[in-house]
Amino acid sequence: MAAAAVWRRGAAWLRSCRANRELPGVPRARGCAGSREVVPTCERYAVRRLPFARLADGDVAFFERLMPGRVITGEEEVKPFNVDWLKSVRGCSQLVLKPQTTAEVSQILRYCHERNLAVNPQGGNTGLVGGSVPVFDEIILSTALMNQIISFDKVSGILVCQAGCVLERLSEYLEEQGFIMPLDLGAKGSCHIGGNVATNAGGLRLLRYGSLRGTVLGLQVVLADGSALDCLTSLRKDNTGYDLKQLFIGSEGTLGVITAVSILCPQRPKAVNVAFLGCQSFAKVLETFTTCRAMLGEILSAYEFMDEKCMELVETHLKLSSPVADSPFYVLIETSGSNSTHDEEKLHNFLEQAMASGLVTDGTVATDKKKIKVLWSLRERITEALTHEGYVYKYDISLPVGKLYDLVTDMRARLGQSAKNVVGYGHLGDGNLHLNITAESYSHSLLEAIEPFVYEWTARCSGSISAEHGLGFKKRHFIHYSKPHEAVLLMQQFKAILDPKGILNPYKTLPSAPDRSTC
Amino acid sequence: MAAAAVWRRGAAWLRSCRANRELPGVPRARGCAGSREVVPTCERYAVRRLPFARLADGDVAFFERLMPGRVITGEEEVKPFNVDWLKSVRGCSQLVLKPQTTAEVSQILRYCHERNLAVNPQGGNTGLVGGSVPVFDEIILSTALMNQIISFDKVSGILVCQAGCVLERLSEYLEEQGFIMPLDLGAKGSCHIGGNVATNAGGLRLLRYGSLRGTVLGLQVVLADGSALDCLTSLRKDNTGYDLKQLFIGSEGTLGVITAVSILCPQRPKAVNVAFLGCQSFAKVLETFTTCRAMLGEILSAYEFMDEKCMELVETHLKLSSPVADSPFYVLIETSGSNSTHDEEKLHNFLEQAMASGLVTDGTVATDKKKIKVLWSLRERITEALTHEGYVYKYDISLPVGKLYDLVTDMRARLGQSAKNVVGYGHLGDGNLHLNITAESYSHSLLEAIEPFVYEWTARCSGSISAEHGLGFKKRHFIHYSKPHEAVLLMQQFKAILDPKGILNPYKTLPSAPDRSTC
Repeated sequence: MAAAAVWRRGAAWLRSCRANRELPGVPRARGCAGSREVVPTCERYAVRRLPFARLADGDVAFFERLMPGRVITGEEEVKPFNVDWLKSVRGCSQLVLKPQTTAEVSQILRYCHERNLAVNPQGGNTGLVGGSVPVFDEIILSTALMNQIISFDKVSGILVCQAGCVLERLSEYLEEQGFIMPLDLGAKGSCHIGGNVATNAGGLRLLRYGSLRGTVLGLQVVLADGSALDCLTSLRKDNTGYDLKQLFIGSEGTLGVITAVSILCPQRPKAVNVAFLGCQSFAKVLETFTTCRAMLGEILSAYEFMDEKCMELVETHLKLSSPVADSPFYVLIETSGSNSTHDEEKLHNFLEQAMASGLVTDGTVATDKKKIKVLWSLRERITEALTHEGYVYKYDISLPVGKLYDLVTDMRARLGQSAKNVVGYGHLGDGNLHLNITAESYSHSLLEAIEPFVYEWTARCSGSISAEHGLGFKKRHFIHYSKPHEAVLLMQQFKAILDPKGILNPYKTLPSAPDRSTC
Repeated sequence: MAAAAVWRRGAAWLRSCRANRELPGVPRARGCAGSREVVPTCERYAVRRLPFARLADGDVAFFERLMPGRVITGEEEVKPFNVDWLKSVRGCSQLVLKPQTTAEVSQILRYCHERNLAVNPQGGNTGLVGGSVPVFDEIILSTALMNQIISFDKVSGILVCQAGCVLERLSEYLEEQGFIMPLDLGAKGSCHIGGNVATNAGGLRLLRYGSLRGTVLGLQVVLADGSALDCLTSLRKDNTGYDLKQLFIGSEGTLGVITAVSILCPQRPKAVNVAFLGCQSFAKVLETFTTCRAMLGEILSAYEFMDEKCMELVETHLKLSSPVADSPFYVLIETSGSNSTHDEEKLHNFLEQAMASGLVTDGTVATDKKKIKVLWSLRERITEALTHEGYVYKYDISLPVGKLYDLVTDMRARLGQSAKNVVGYGHLGDGNLHLNITAESYSHSLLEAIEPFVYEWTARCSGSISAEHGLGFKKRHFIHYSKPHEAVLLMQQFKAILDPKGILNPYKTLPSAPDRSTC
């Protein structure tokens, strides 16, 4: 196959669809999800404000002295930081701080700790479980100006950078050096690497390059009392004591504020191919996976799936078009390797077999960068398309791969006409389903039809109720469906040690302690 | 190249050397390292016994009732469990317990916790830093009989097994299913998977499959008070709360006893090739690495190096023979892939270039399993060869790869004739040097010439004083060379929460609290 060759069958081919892989950040998201007002979280949910101090003029004056010009206080200016990307939760913070250095983060937290002021660390604000915005009036500590690359070593492939670097900027920087980031996700255009680490982001490359727990080599973290913990090593191996950084990976800003990251980056593949295929059943999606894993082996870098409803939504709302004939399921397979001839031969052999055995009924292959982007956008922009539907109930579930789609089918049957759409897509190669249910607007009765059913269903299969999105504000009370009581108790003990006043991202991740005050 | 083809240059080729990749376990180790008596640890080192209770007849009776026939008390029978594989440290435990289930481990620890009896968890006893044997009279809790495979899922590649499964047995089991373990190390014939996880073992495949922090998906752990923590999930992704299992990975049995492991296993590669090459300088070893990483890309699965002294030792003590002409440095490169034709072509292209540009002056390639084993044994059996030299001072250092061998050169110059041998080998692809210094017998003055020099040297390069071996008993007081004071304090706080009486593997990993009693 030539580098730009296209493998196809049937009449389908790409029409002119926008090759935008970005999941818009806060400003664009507002346009995206319409201009409706978001109900404040403390009104929609039964949650009470904990007895933190309230912001006083003296506090603002202190921060103005500490970092002049980087303190935001106007209601309108603060508003985008108070609302999440999905427009599903809204805090009422009056203050955003934009430190540039670890030392400044230290000073902020030391002050807040002393004053008992609650703090909401915020990266690109692309989280999907309400973890990145305040619930009440927490001070927002934004990493937006902590965007410096500290070092990159081409021999080891180790990148050290500040927490506020945007993932896509890092990717672009590395590509010039012949490397790539070990993670990639739809929100790449907005999300910060610090936020990625704080939420243990999974994304599209986990199948190939593993989780951040293996690729993050070091972290610099500021603890709740302002003390800095410097574990920013650039070593692939280090077995000197307990691996403290792991506690902060995936702790959603509740144990400390990540200010810098050291991460191991793979070499940029010399050849990338993407195949977009149609399958007639989910059983065939699964069989296609085991076949391609065996035949593509070490060059397989992504195996994503989406159902026909997802395709309908990206076609309707984003004007993208399907490159393959109507199918109940679509699969996106990416290969990344060091030899284009070898890779194309492997892919060709696989596709021949998949077609011959009827696993796949239609498909297209892209080898050039632009067409690859177009194919990826079909999968990556589903989240964005969903926001156009109204209110979205989002579930991010890990399941044994064979049962992955049963949950979608069961949910669709259960909800019937009360939901606008029930769709399933996700990282099949990782056993990770994104189940999304849409309705014109938020409805408590619909929520009650979904929850706890979805969690009970997941727990029966020993799945995880949050594969990669985290628990944030919305899912924290459901942690028991995936973690035993003793584990949650231990987590609460660690929280108490690291943040005894509980000022860091309160109301997130762990079930709340008994409420002590009112909104 | 045909599958069994051999690429070579010069007169060198493999003579009949034993293809034993095992690092012998305890019983064989005794033969290996000679029959000299080991000085008790508490006599050699300035360490005082902490005020734990002393074993009473009633205790033994309790354990006999709990697990009849699996309680070892005779001095001779207990002896192999008291001495480490290197014969460098020796405890004086009077009791070995061999539980079969998590419930039994729970009952043992609940009892010991109540009675304030110290416990030394022990896997295959192949540790190299004195972490796996008692220092005083700690009860030895051996995982030897916890050797059941619980489940293996061929779709996901996830293995769940008890902690006492021997790594090589697991590898053999998986190979039959078309999979492999994500880790491999010289001690595979004796080490237990629970011990591997407890020490965060690195080994020979880390370059390709990443660390255990990414591949271990779940753990079952019994805490010091006997309570069981069940985090034995079989999910590739799970972001529900803090990742508690990470604390136990690499904690060397000081925070809990790992009783079962869930681990993600890669597919067995269809083609494996090994090249064994001679390089004329360390600079060429480095350049060969960057060249092969670029040209072999995704199929590179190991890049190991050893110096000529290492070769001399395996030739002298183990009667192995070098397949390539005398060189100051040797490199072992392994490829693992899904298509033998593609892989051999990549390897061939790389070797052509390495030869043409003078990076490599002699070499051989093996593609069949038996010859591959023979080549690997040259690298894997260095540790064993070293034990024949007398006393071995072992250092396991992470460094920026460019400086890796400077430490060996500097140390050799520093020690002059006072050391018998100063050798360097290791996992170059991971920046991991094994520096070994041998002498006829233990000498305190030689130790003082080595330490803290070796640690100061490492710290100046921001390296790690323990890349993969852990800190155990021997290195714990040097943790400050690689970890800041705040981090060590935090570790001590976690230890205090999880094991408030300090009964689990005392005198290990963390610097000691002020001594309270005598030996």
